[in-house]
Amino acid sequence: MRFLGTLSNFSKLLNHSFARNIPKRRMACSRFEYVKSFEQDDSILPNVWIVIRIDGKKFHKFSKTHDFEKPNDENALNVMNAAATAVLQEFRDIVIAYGQSDEYSFVFRKETAAFKRRSAKLLTYVTSLFSTSYVMQWSKWMNMPLAYAPCFDGRVVLYPSEQNLKDYLSWRQADVHVNNLYNTAFWKLVLEKGLTNQEAEAKLRGTFSADKNELLFQEFGINYNNLPAMYRKGTILLRKRVVIGDKSRQAVVPLHEDLISSQFWKQHTEILGKYVPGTYNAPEPLPRLIDLQLNAKHVDEDEEEPQNLAGIS
Amino acid sequence: MRFLGTLSNFSKLLNHSFARNIPKRRMACSRFEYVKSFEQDDSILPNVWIVIRIDGKKFHKFSKTHDFEKPNDENALNVMNAAATAVLQEFRDIVIAYGQSDEYSFVFRKETAAFKRRSAKLLTYVTSLFSTSYVMQWSKWMNMPLAYAPCFDGRVVLYPSEQNLKDYLSWRQADVHVNNLYNTAFWKLVLEKGLTNQEAEAKLRGTFSADKNELLFQEFGINYNNLPAMYRKGTILLRKRVVIGDKSRQAVVPLHEDLISSQFWKQHTEILGKYVPGTYNAPEPLPRLIDLQLNAKHVDEDEEEPQNLAGIS
Amino acid sequence: MRFLGTLSNFSKLLNHSFARNIPKRRMACSRFEYVKSFEQDDSILPNVWIVIRIDGKKFHKFSKTHDFEKPNDENALNVMNAAATAVLQEFRDIVIAYGQSDEYSFVFRKETAAFKRRSAKLLTYVTSLFSTSYVMQWSKWMNMPLAYAPCFDGRVVLYPSEQNLKDYLSWRQADVHVNNLYNTAFWKLVLEKGLTNQEAEAKLRGTFSADKNELLFQEFGINYNNLPAMYRKGTILLRKRVVIGDKSRQAVVPLHEDLISSQFWKQHTEILGKYVPGTYNAPEPLPRLIDLQLNAKHVDEDEEEPQNLAGIS
Amino acid sequence: MRFLGTLSNFSKLLNHSFARNIPKRRMACSRFEYVKSFEQDDSILPNVWIVIRIDGKKFHKFSKTHDFEKPNDENALNVMNAAATAVLQEFRDIVIAYGQSDEYSFVFRKETAAFKRRSAKLLTYVTSLFSTSYVMQWSKWMNMPLAYAPCFDGRVVLYPSEQNLKDYLSWRQADVHVNNLYNTAFWKLVLEKGLTNQEAEAKLRGTFSADKNELLFQEFGINYNNLPAMYRKGTILLRKRVVIGDKSRQAVVPLHEDLISSQFWKQHTEILGKYVPGTYNAPEPLPRLIDLQLNAKHVDEDEEEPQNLAGIS
Repeated sequence: MRFLGTLSNFSKLLNHSFARNIPKRRMACSRFEYVKSFEQDDSILPNVWIVIRIDGKKFHKFSKTHDFEKPNDENALNVMNAAATAVLQEFRDIVIAYGQSDEYSFVFRKETAAFKRRSAKLLTYVTSLFSTSYVMQWSKWMNMPLAYAPCFDGRVVLYPSEQNLKDYLSWRQADVHVNNLYNTAFWKLVLEKGLTNQEAEAKLRGTFSADKNELLFQEFGINYNNLPAMYRKGTILLRKRVVIGDKSRQAVVPLHEDLISSQFWKQHTEILGKYVPGTYNAPEPLPRLIDLQLNAKHVDEDEEEPQNLAGIS
Repeated sequence: MRFLGTLSNFSKLLNHSFARNIPKRRMACSRFEYVKSFEQDDSILPNVWIVIRIDGKKFHKFSKTHDFEKPNDENALNVMNAAATAVLQEFRDIVIAYGQSDEYSFVFRKETAAFKRRSAKLLTYVTSLFSTSYVMQWSKWMNMPLAYAPCFDGRVVLYPSEQNLKDYLSWRQADVHVNNLYNTAFWKLVLEKGLTNQEAEAKLRGTFSADKNELLFQEFGINYNNLPAMYRKGTILLRKRVVIGDKSRQAVVPLHEDLISSQFWKQHTEILGKYVPGTYNAPEPLPRLIDLQLNAKHVDEDEEEPQNLAGIS
Repeated sequence: MRFLGTLSNFSKLLNHSFARNIPKRRMACSRFEYVKSFEQDDSILPNVWIVIRIDGKKFHKFSKTHDFEKPNDENALNVMNAAATAVLQEFRDIVIAYGQSDEYSFVFRKETAAFKRRSAKLLTYVTSLFSTSYVMQWSKWMNMPLAYAPCFDGRVVLYPSEQNLKDYLSWRQADVHVNNLYNTAFWKLVLEKGLTNQEAEAKLRGTFSADKNELLFQEFGINYNNLPAMYRKGTILLRKRVVIGDKSRQAVVPLHEDLISSQFWKQHTEILGKYVPGTYNAPEPLPRLIDLQLNAKHVDEDEEEPQNLAGIS
Repeated sequence: MRFLGTLSNFSKLLNHSFARNIPKRRMACSRFEYVKSFEQDDSILPNVWIVIRIDGKKFHKFSKTHDFEKPNDENALNVMNAAATAVLQEFRDIVIAYGQSDEYSFVFRKETAAFKRRSAKLLTYVTSLFSTSYVMQWSKWMNMPLAYAPCFDGRVVLYPSEQNLKDYLSWRQADVHVNNLYNTAFWKLVLEKGLTNQEAEAKLRGTFSADKNELLFQEFGINYNNLPAMYRKGTILLRKRVVIGDKSRQAVVPLHEDLISSQFWKQHTEILGKYVPGTYNAPEPLPRLIDLQLNAKHVDEDEEEPQNLAGIS
């Protein structure tokens, strides 16, 4: 929190030019400064996709404490989506984000020079901003106040090729499919048929997707494919030009599409291509996640350009 | 947010035993799973001190937006201290934390096995919990609501010897001395003498500590050494047994001592030694940071042991 | 140098099954074994080209001591080529090598699983085998005996895309062009015109390629493009099927082509493609580097498969 | 193998000052130079002991091909010792080396700045020089010529504390004890009692050190502790002042002492202390390894200081 950039420059000058004359305590500073050399370079290899995945710490307990609906809590998922949206608004080099359950993946374009590609910088800025945004978004979506501070871990994974990157995202989307189908069947058995957790588990053990689809249809009259897409597909966040009437404005929009299909990549060419945001034909009513953005007062817009963040340590 | 540990085990079983028979979409999951192999091991060398330092991103602007008092805002510093306290309560292997301005350093004991010493895990858990705690503590100390989500970066630095570690902490404390003395003189000139920023800067250019001490005394009647220790020395957080009357209870306590002196390390032997918390003779009134801890309702105390966190990914 | 594979297995068994009963000194072994945990994983990211470049240490002095011809010593270059050939014969996952002056680059195909992609293993095996082969090849090409042990350093560089890899090799070939043109002109001036080193240097200072070409032609009657291709282009090593008469046999062959051109990559599709060696129409006489291979007695061919090396630590 | 240091500087100058005017092909050089940015920093953490361990690749086969005596070949071990000696002569920051069987460990003092502590540089220079020296020393100790180029792998391991370092070396020495006792008994049974490998193995299975000692004494009249120390303890290389008569000269000397005992470290304080070589009272006859050093013609001594190596890339 150095209060003036110029001061910090002045201070550097002082270190160098006057080092010889500075009295005892000031010398002490130099004496210790060697410890800075223990910081190690962690620049990421050029020309690879940088994925940062964030994961809730002990969210099983967290979801119980805050009475999340089972198997999916729409509002809780939207707190995740809103926090991730804040991250995309800040870091322009993120070309796609994908979230499901208590995790979110952010993909930096492979040419990004943000923070000189320093791994820890990228990792912690994304994790920190996601974390604080989660807390600040909470009350906009949830009724119960936060009982304690949530916590997320983050990791950096690198993918050299487009295929690797697509497969990564497909892996996460295949995961939500498998888990959500199971969870949907499990909680139906527990909440509507009154089975114990153990009984439900036993009933589902060894079943295949087709079996669980059948069970949901036969016993509960549910066509799994008609359940909300957000639960079945997770949430994809892209920067799009939102068209409302005859106006348009850029915003981060949530999609719940099948990204395993090649169709998805043909439609959203900006992800792997030239990063020119595509058009989003806004449904009625407008998703609240977008609405909040369009009506936000941007406190800092006049002061600084988000694009410039990259060069700052 | 997998809802049952057992399910996740079951799911693993499914992956292995039934892989051959699982229908199309389930196979898809396997097809993509190779991408997991792109995650790289980042375990930290054994037997070195692990320091994680967190730094506020663009806190110059943040402090202006939120009208921080100059040159020090006691309450804003206490938000930092309270957030750091939350981190120490969660991670028992942190033996000392040190904060000043918009930065905080956390030192894990060199034998820690927390998160298998995985660098990104340690780094992001600390950064995330500090970040969310900062937001949640804000309203306990500040009048103005948060205008936007703050953000912190974090880095991991390793120190092989006790001397290196002491020198690291001394480096940070020497830094606060140099900066705070300058800032104190600067803001006195600006706020009380009506100098412009440029005039104040020019007047202080090339001066030594002794000069600034003299200026403060001659022109403002201020004995720098009598200013609050928290501003001059920063804040050291240690786990101590707090003695109040004839009772005692463990808590994280703030100290504002000189850690560059050997005296400090002789008095607080638990930092480098056997980690048996020393005694803290609570002053009257009890610092609010401690009071908040002693009166906190610990929601999770019965459920889980913080020590166990280490083993969980 | 454990003398029997089975013993080493037996020894492992001993460690595990009998650990409880083993007397004092055997226990000592366990007491120290924790130090093994300080070895850190250095596996290379999957799906990137792995380039290992070897460089002679102080070869300016080495070339003087051994009276290398200036500006190029054909035999000394062939010692390098022969050592590199030995490396390609051993490591089947190297798809191309490129050498010039005292350096050689080896490119492992991006899918290689050799030595589990452990960086230090790949780096040191290549560096060590190149080094020992250099010494063993020396007397086949040079008259003067080796005055002392030569030394090479090595480094690992990763390239995610084909373009990056081609550009890397082009960078090295552009380097030999610039250096060799300069060196050719320089030594002509020194050796034939009797200039001192300083005078030759002064004469060439600030000149462009065209100037040096002109100088060689005007003053020495030399058409630079007619000089041996090995000096101008360096040496590319590829595994090819060598056709001699109506027989063919696989060997590592030296090429001195322009790899900056796209033509090169169209002709040698095995480098980036399916790794099916192309055909080499042997000139008359057969280059000695190939001849030595075709007539070599392969001591180990019956015993072990080079492909299996990958799995061995 | 750039032929003049000044040329290389000139060439750099050329790159920068004239880059705008240089014709087509020279530009090509710049176009590719970006690939250099893919090299990643691998500087080693300051203030830790750097151990480089070299290991023979497939030395079981190598020892059979070259008819090594079983269980120990004194001359073959001395080729290893002589190669390691060459490494210590070159790298003055190596304070101790330890060898046994087909492996050798080199310990750089923890303050070393050699090659800016770049991991790959240190690793490959040591591995390469050891490898070439092994080949060049071979004929001085062995009768049979080298049948093919040997190969060694190398790894870097870091130890933060003196105790860790001692324990590392103790681990290697405990290893030689266990292996050598077993091998001695095994080969006695095979070579003198005519057992097959399988029978010998079966006879030794599950035995303890005491059992094998007893077997050697009872069946072969051998007191294991009287066997040559080099076989039982391996070889420690230290830089010492060799005293012969009333003269003394510095050399690398082989010791076969017990380094697990604290006595060893008290006697050779230069290893962990101020690096002042101790005195070596030369036995009669002088070990040949030392004799070769004292009588060597040092080709390069006048030209360059080995200490300067550190600063050269």
